[in-house]
Amino acid sequence: MSGQFITKTRTRLAAAERYGMSKGKLVSVILEPDGFEVRVPVGTLLSKAAAAAGRSVEMPCGGIGLCGKCRVLVSGDVTPPDTAEERLLGSESLADGVRLACRTKAIGNTRVVIPDESRSIVQKILSDSKLRDCCLNPGIRKIYCELSPPSLDDERAEFERLAEHLSEHGVGVRPNINVARTISSDLRSASYKVTAVICDDELIAVESGDTTQTIYGIAFDLGSTTVVGYLIDLTNSKELGVSAVMNPQMVYGDDLVGRISFATTHDDGRKTLQAAALDALNRIVQNVSKTAKVSAEHIYKASLVGNTCMTHLLLGIDVNSLGQSPYVPSMCADMTVPAREIGLKVNAEAKLTVLPNVAGFVGSDLVGVLLSNLWEDGGQVRLAVDIGTNGEMALMCAGKTYVCSAAAGPAFEGAGISCGMRGGPGAIDSVVIDDDVHFTTIMERKPIGLCGSGLVDAVAQMLDAGIVDEGGRLLSADDVGHLPSSLRDRLVTTPHGTSFVLAWKHESGTGKNLSLTHTDIRHLQLAKGSMHAAIQTLLKTAGLEDAQLDQILLAGAFGNYISVESAMRIGLIPAIDRRKVVSIGNAAGSGAKLALLCVNELQRARTIATSATHLELAVSPDYQMELMERMMFPGQSE
Amino acid sequence: MSGQFITKTRTRLAAAERYGMSKGKLVSVILEPDGFEVRVPVGTLLSKAAAAAGRSVEMPCGGIGLCGKCRVLVSGDVTPPDTAEERLLGSESLADGVRLACRTKAIGNTRVVIPDESRSIVQKILSDSKLRDCCLNPGIRKIYCELSPPSLDDERAEFERLAEHLSEHGVGVRPNINVARTISSDLRSASYKVTAVICDDELIAVESGDTTQTIYGIAFDLGSTTVVGYLIDLTNSKELGVSAVMNPQMVYGDDLVGRISFATTHDDGRKTLQAAALDALNRIVQNVSKTAKVSAEHIYKASLVGNTCMTHLLLGIDVNSLGQSPYVPSMCADMTVPAREIGLKVNAEAKLTVLPNVAGFVGSDLVGVLLSNLWEDGGQVRLAVDIGTNGEMALMCAGKTYVCSAAAGPAFEGAGISCGMRGGPGAIDSVVIDDDVHFTTIMERKPIGLCGSGLVDAVAQMLDAGIVDEGGRLLSADDVGHLPSSLRDRLVTTPHGTSFVLAWKHESGTGKNLSLTHTDIRHLQLAKGSMHAAIQTLLKTAGLEDAQLDQILLAGAFGNYISVESAMRIGLIPAIDRRKVVSIGNAAGSGAKLALLCVNELQRARTIATSATHLELAVSPDYQMELMERMMFPGQSE
Repeated sequence: MSGQFITKTRTRLAAAERYGMSKGKLVSVILEPDGFEVRVPVGTLLSKAAAAAGRSVEMPCGGIGLCGKCRVLVSGDVTPPDTAEERLLGSESLADGVRLACRTKAIGNTRVVIPDESRSIVQKILSDSKLRDCCLNPGIRKIYCELSPPSLDDERAEFERLAEHLSEHGVGVRPNINVARTISSDLRSASYKVTAVICDDELIAVESGDTTQTIYGIAFDLGSTTVVGYLIDLTNSKELGVSAVMNPQMVYGDDLVGRISFATTHDDGRKTLQAAALDALNRIVQNVSKTAKVSAEHIYKASLVGNTCMTHLLLGIDVNSLGQSPYVPSMCADMTVPAREIGLKVNAEAKLTVLPNVAGFVGSDLVGVLLSNLWEDGGQVRLAVDIGTNGEMALMCAGKTYVCSAAAGPAFEGAGISCGMRGGPGAIDSVVIDDDVHFTTIMERKPIGLCGSGLVDAVAQMLDAGIVDEGGRLLSADDVGHLPSSLRDRLVTTPHGTSFVLAWKHESGTGKNLSLTHTDIRHLQLAKGSMHAAIQTLLKTAGLEDAQLDQILLAGAFGNYISVESAMRIGLIPAIDRRKVVSIGNAAGSGAKLALLCVNELQRARTIATSATHLELAVSPDYQMELMERMMFPGQSE
Repeated sequence: MSGQFITKTRTRLAAAERYGMSKGKLVSVILEPDGFEVRVPVGTLLSKAAAAAGRSVEMPCGGIGLCGKCRVLVSGDVTPPDTAEERLLGSESLADGVRLACRTKAIGNTRVVIPDESRSIVQKILSDSKLRDCCLNPGIRKIYCELSPPSLDDERAEFERLAEHLSEHGVGVRPNINVARTISSDLRSASYKVTAVICDDELIAVESGDTTQTIYGIAFDLGSTTVVGYLIDLTNSKELGVSAVMNPQMVYGDDLVGRISFATTHDDGRKTLQAAALDALNRIVQNVSKTAKVSAEHIYKASLVGNTCMTHLLLGIDVNSLGQSPYVPSMCADMTVPAREIGLKVNAEAKLTVLPNVAGFVGSDLVGVLLSNLWEDGGQVRLAVDIGTNGEMALMCAGKTYVCSAAAGPAFEGAGISCGMRGGPGAIDSVVIDDDVHFTTIMERKPIGLCGSGLVDAVAQMLDAGIVDEGGRLLSADDVGHLPSSLRDRLVTTPHGTSFVLAWKHESGTGKNLSLTHTDIRHLQLAKGSMHAAIQTLLKTAGLEDAQLDQILLAGAFGNYISVESAMRIGLIPAIDRRKVVSIGNAAGSGAKLALLCVNELQRARTIATSATHLELAVSPDYQMELMERMMFPGQSE
């Protein structure tokens, strides 16, 4: 089989191993003060369990048992204190049940109180998204009606009384069973002055009085790591609020492979993951409706994009086939269900539309990216790239769209890198190397690790400085005698080989050096190589060269924060005119918003999904060849 | 207000009083050996509780504590034994927990074991129904598909794989969320050889192998007293089985008013009645599928008719407005819901269609009667009458249909009559009076009471014999000196006035005389008077006379068993040529069958329901006048 296939299989096997633990039973962790319960695999760190419930604890040291900030009060069945806890908490506190969330694992049912001072601010999340113009035609209408009450001279049924009134105003409606159940008392208690809420031609709610000014919708981007929701006023297209939470499924698996494994090997695994995703959506609904001071009952429509696995899990669809070759989805078609059907806590009869997928690893999130950046000015050649563990990308030229996904591995998300971390507080997110190493961190905390954009910057700068060669070899201090000692001294020899120190232990928040190793650089090479090889395969399939690209659109969090120069320097994207590369923010979310605002946009999304040509890199000899080539770093001259 | 209104109100008040008891709390009665639980008002007889659960006990004496046949084994909180039980059971049996179901009331949670010998055969139920010709186009299709499994060269999603195959055969399908959830494993386990089940354009099931020959549907007639279901093979229109059960809601109220009262005054009253109706439907499904040896999973469509109150309760719709003037329904439109939505145990995605209503007391059962007897040969004047507590009727002439309902009271169902009973074993169902009284009973048992058809016969014969006069007065033995003593002796004087003995105590199954009193005859006069007055009002509205009627169709159980001559003799229906009166059996059920067989019939039912002119007798001065007149019995000459 081809390289992509091998890559996929390898990544999957590695992940399956990592999740070996999760084949065991689940235990209950109840998080106080609000009593939220989360079910996690035996041996889950309390910090992870809390994160799964969206109630993260503060861990300035990155969760390595150094700072002692993640104190929680624990009762139940957990692992005994380790030396770090004994040192930081003392026997008295431990006897009182105080523990560090980053060290303590749940081995049975456990209750955890998180004191206020231990609550954390969440990961830096990309929620910005620009929106192209679109018509406002969400398919939700409200009509205020003053009806005559029943009398012996007018014995029409309650529903027909309302329907005939609406019909006189040119609107035909059909009944909804749940509305019919209470329409009689609803009309009576409102003295027959009501607002009819109509979705397409279905009467989905009857509200007391005139509520015609309050029609809201919510657009979701259900990412594997981050879930974002946008509250939109459907009377005027205005965005009223945005909320982002970590995907609570993370505790069951860091990436898609882990979650598929969890879903297919655990009893009720699918239900557990569905409930976790739903919990994230419901917390977002709660957040945005509270902030914008609107009632969630007045949200009548929801749209959602996500990768194929995420949307399958949300809808309760079997993901087994996504976990084994040839990785086909259960379904690509878009799906609309009543909110009550899956338990989304907006108006019970609101319609949730999940946009269509293209393939097993090309989901509605990429369709959302395409929808929000439709190549309307034909003739231009554009490439859209959503970089992540599973990078999805699309190339449009001459009216055709080619899409593919590349299993890049988790390096861009800081995983698999020795000092890697997600883009949270204290993550090094940009690096400059001149005579010494300079960096910035998120929220200007002391550095505790390196996130994706920092990694790309660091390696790009190391290439320029001659610390890493084109083959990806980290040079030794002896090889770089021409460099100032402030840099040379950073090349230290460890039992595992040479490593390059980005932050010395005295300046780091962990008390340890933050370094990049040869292996770290290999991980990045594999990740960027597979992304770039995928891009080249798309171009080759379309018969194009790099120079013919009119635009490269970088979507998603990574695409937003990354330095374009560094990305080109390490060969992650083609080295074209810098000005042709544009970060488009959360374009997947924008696609969800468009589908929310106008019913025609859903139709357009369908056209995109069904007309796109999906390249399966696993069976592409071109990709194989490209992968070999693109693993290398470009030379200085490029 | 008018007489009809007064009648209605009076009937309702009386019923509300009768159901006063049921305003208390509910207790649980568990019926062994099968452990079925039913929740009933405190003070409910165990015999009634058993009937509510469809597990009736044998009561040859009619439940008056005479025969001792209804022995059950009781544990829990019940009333203490009465003298009848002490006499019939003895202290030893009582100490062992043996009780009579007809005497013992549940006052707390109770467990009842019904031994085999105490199980009863159910009431004689009308399930015959002739069916007019109709097209077979139920909207359910099955298509056998052999698909190519996914491969690296064919990575189409599972749903799309099937949908595209169907599309090649000219059938477009849209996904159903529940089918999508398991389509992947369903296709795999069937080696991609499956039968697609399509309802309209929705893929509602995917079955392993070729099951194209098994497409079943079920048509229900949900009556207040009796529930009937017909299993139909939708590949060839053949009826495969029929099953009838008593409506378990009876324990919560004998008639509609009682049930509306229960639904609106009890916590969860509506849910309790919904569950009871659903239980009846599910027992029928179980019965017919067992008898016909088909899997209930292969029933993909259901249709249902019933009066407005019954169908509202089944669908969980508020019935409050049906219980108070002006008695408007929540909804008249037909409603189609997935079987899983209400818990009908056929294929989960099967569609249940409840036919449309016309008004609060003119339900889809009358629409079913009209649908099954559509006046296709225009020009004829036809009257259809469904006689019951709430008699529903329709008159069609010159392309117009007039419908109305009359609150006749429960006399035709044997209630409110001193020796009245429903049409079960031992009920006198026909009477002839010559020199003496002769009668037949249902199942040729010893007589224990008088059912509706027996009552009409008895009074008609008593009129002919001169024992009752035109005003409804029961003559005394002194007034009828010309009659043979075998008849005269039957006119006995009791503390409550004169009564006429139909069966002497030595020949009856109860050990007591079975007699008709003056009050009984008054009840019948009121019942038949309101029915006939309604008929006359319909005729008058259409500008017609009795003689212009080309046909009278008698629908339902009573219409089937009644003697047409007797009905005319007492003035229940117009006295026209006997040959013009036709019993059409369970015509409501036939309507449900038609709607099952062909989608066009549902459209036709909608047209019937929306185009019918509903006469509200409560506001009709004509009805008022007619009621005065029709209370009288016709003279001999008529």
